[in-house]
Amino acid sequence: MSQSTPRVFIVGGGFAGLAAARALANAPARVTIVDYRNHHVFQPLLYQVATASLSPADISEPIRTIVRDQRNCQVVMAKVVGVDVARRRLLIAGGYVEYDYLILAAGATHSYFGHDEWANIAPGLKTIDDAIELRRRILLAFESAEYEGDDEARRAELTFAIVGAGPTGVELAGAIKEIAGKTIPQDYRFIDTTTTRVLLFEGVDRVLPTFPPKLSDHAKRDLERMGVEVRLNQMVTDISDKGITVGEEFIAVRNIFWAAGVKASSIGESLGVPLDRSNRVIVEPDLSIPDHPEVFVTGDMAAARSADTGEPVPGVAQGGIQMGRYAGRVIADELAGRSTPADRKAFVYRDKGSMAVIGKASAVAATRRVNIGGFIAWLLWAGVHIAFLVGFRNRFQVLLRWFWNWLFNARDARLITGDAPLDVHTPRPREFVYQPSPEDGADASSPPRDETSS
Amino acid sequence: MSQSTPRVFIVGGGFAGLAAARALANAPARVTIVDYRNHHVFQPLLYQVATASLSPADISEPIRTIVRDQRNCQVVMAKVVGVDVARRRLLIAGGYVEYDYLILAAGATHSYFGHDEWANIAPGLKTIDDAIELRRRILLAFESAEYEGDDEARRAELTFAIVGAGPTGVELAGAIKEIAGKTIPQDYRFIDTTTTRVLLFEGVDRVLPTFPPKLSDHAKRDLERMGVEVRLNQMVTDISDKGITVGEEFIAVRNIFWAAGVKASSIGESLGVPLDRSNRVIVEPDLSIPDHPEVFVTGDMAAARSADTGEPVPGVAQGGIQMGRYAGRVIADELAGRSTPADRKAFVYRDKGSMAVIGKASAVAATRRVNIGGFIAWLLWAGVHIAFLVGFRNRFQVLLRWFWNWLFNARDARLITGDAPLDVHTPRPREFVYQPSPEDGADASSPPRDETSS
Repeated sequence: MSQSTPRVFIVGGGFAGLAAARALANAPARVTIVDYRNHHVFQPLLYQVATASLSPADISEPIRTIVRDQRNCQVVMAKVVGVDVARRRLLIAGGYVEYDYLILAAGATHSYFGHDEWANIAPGLKTIDDAIELRRRILLAFESAEYEGDDEARRAELTFAIVGAGPTGVELAGAIKEIAGKTIPQDYRFIDTTTTRVLLFEGVDRVLPTFPPKLSDHAKRDLERMGVEVRLNQMVTDISDKGITVGEEFIAVRNIFWAAGVKASSIGESLGVPLDRSNRVIVEPDLSIPDHPEVFVTGDMAAARSADTGEPVPGVAQGGIQMGRYAGRVIADELAGRSTPADRKAFVYRDKGSMAVIGKASAVAATRRVNIGGFIAWLLWAGVHIAFLVGFRNRFQVLLRWFWNWLFNARDARLITGDAPLDVHTPRPREFVYQPSPEDGADASSPPRDETSS
Repeated sequence: MSQSTPRVFIVGGGFAGLAAARALANAPARVTIVDYRNHHVFQPLLYQVATASLSPADISEPIRTIVRDQRNCQVVMAKVVGVDVARRRLLIAGGYVEYDYLILAAGATHSYFGHDEWANIAPGLKTIDDAIELRRRILLAFESAEYEGDDEARRAELTFAIVGAGPTGVELAGAIKEIAGKTIPQDYRFIDTTTTRVLLFEGVDRVLPTFPPKLSDHAKRDLERMGVEVRLNQMVTDISDKGITVGEEFIAVRNIFWAAGVKASSIGESLGVPLDRSNRVIVEPDLSIPDHPEVFVTGDMAAARSADTGEPVPGVAQGGIQMGRYAGRVIADELAGRSTPADRKAFVYRDKGSMAVIGKASAVAATRRVNIGGFIAWLLWAGVHIAFLVGFRNRFQVLLRWFWNWLFNARDARLITGDAPLDVHTPRPREFVYQPSPEDGADASSPPRDETSS
């Protein structure tokens, strides 16, 4: 260790990284959070940005603002490329920094199970930029369908396929069905957006596979009542810009979203320790890596087990928060001389339950004591999420928007941004009476029509 | 004219286009708004998005939602490339449509006075995407400065130059000074953001040149009290990524924003009629073009004069609204058989006054009767803008955000999005103790430091 104040680096400003920083608030250390983005994202509500219900800023906050009052903590916006464990160096694009303790909490990204070529066609939902892209595609689908003259092509535009029925997939499916069925029908003249199909594919035999089977059934019923087509035990074998192939069946669909697999940040690969098949670092009981008690791996980057039950720690916000806090406390204790690496107690995960929301007024909530579904679960879900947003300073606005949307079925953030919004789809002629170039011989007058919409 | 319902095309869903559509609400016509974007933008508040006070969705709304209840109106998201006036065709990328009446209201974009190479270095502020880019640059400047080891380079990062002291330039300058001075100082450990310099350059001898001289003086005093450096009678002669050259003087500055000139949409060039030097179409007294009473040009695309005073119609929201409404009414009257092109009365512009806001609690407002500056003008400004947001459905949220920011100096939308946020600036080492690669011979230990920030 160097002679100056010990340096603790935390890679990632997500749930795990922030919890670690907070646990180090009074430690005699210089704590540095390194993140490629300037903001923390409240990931459980990302699907609401993707479906135009909330604005990106409603669920994000600059990391440096969150730790503003923690005077031993600084924040660097930089890209981490790996770790030189032997020399205790964190490698950053174009250079490195030296650490005394390191907490890796860089999270996970989508995994296409070896089909990276699907990524552009079927984007996933992990970051604010992902959410903006999903929103763009969802809104553009209706724009394109409105003037698509070919029935089959229009049907494909108005079909959404979501791969993976975990919480993100379930929440996206419900929200898209709601937009199409309740929010926007009056906005269009030629299409009936209530006919929008939403297909939810899951490889195993129930939705929300990490929940109790009873709640999976509840969620499936709610989804089906909303009109979502739930397809269980179906493996996606191909994805193209024409559609999706499930087993032998091809379905024409222009909008495919990926909520199936994740793989951990590639930073773990540089550690030289065993990874699981999701690229997660297989950590010791104290969340460190073999032979390096000064390196912790937390959150979605870690394949960890709870010391009491031996069960894997789930990839949810609470898992990240508890792991990050644990690592931060261990370091704080050791820096203060209250303990040594030999004294460390193994990490124990406390299951605080998990929730998923289905549409506007239903949810499922599983805790160790009770499993509930329906409106009561929805209230619980809303309460917990608003409580979590404390510290975001946006909670009043989030609350107001929710209430507003609830009352009026509004989606306030229906904004298509980005430079080339029209490049994805080129609609073919329909009621717009659009004549293709070249002009010559194209004096066919438009078919007469009146103001009644189809 | 075709035998079917007359077709009126409106190009652009800005103030002029929407006013035209509304004036045609009861006309026996099929009205189609064509816009490259899906949303209308409340442009007077764009600077608040650029300075992270409001979210993009707070000041924008899907065009089709705005005209939802106008059953004779449809909306197409498409790119217009020109007009074939002789054949009455509106040319759209890859094809065309035929019109009976056409209202062009496609607005204006930035003009760099023949220096298009400045565009990437000094972006302007016309669209939501522009605002997001400005926000990104403003926020990244502080991120880069925080870890910039070289004093001179850090100073350049913390210097903002705004070219053009019209309302947009004045509003941007005031807002940036406020962020730097009040909102974010506590977020940084190594820089004092209150030392941020904001330079406002104007080619003529006063700020807000379109306002009465008395108010220009008022605005200049307010800006200078906030610490904005106002430079009058200074022509920018060069812009590079190193800085800005004004006359013979070079100033190192890494953040340059363009609020100087605009030029009208290039669609006007396809009409074959005279344009002014800002590319605007020189219209007839009835806002039509010579020999084509069925083609109107409105808003920022038009060089129009008010028939009563002979004065040019200013390029403000009211100019667009009044021109659009006029064109829509003329068409509605003629389609209903109440009048003919020969009966048209010339367009008269009613000056409802103009306003510009300077920081959080001051503004200037000029009407025909009174000219006021200061807090009262700010209240007027806030009231008028909130009233204008009626129909946006977001006004409560906007009001709440403003109030919140007012109370807490918060900037809720401090979000850096986009794929490569770190490519603009690569900070050099400072307190971050960042060691450049290659690693060999780089075992120089970091300089000792403690927790007190500089």
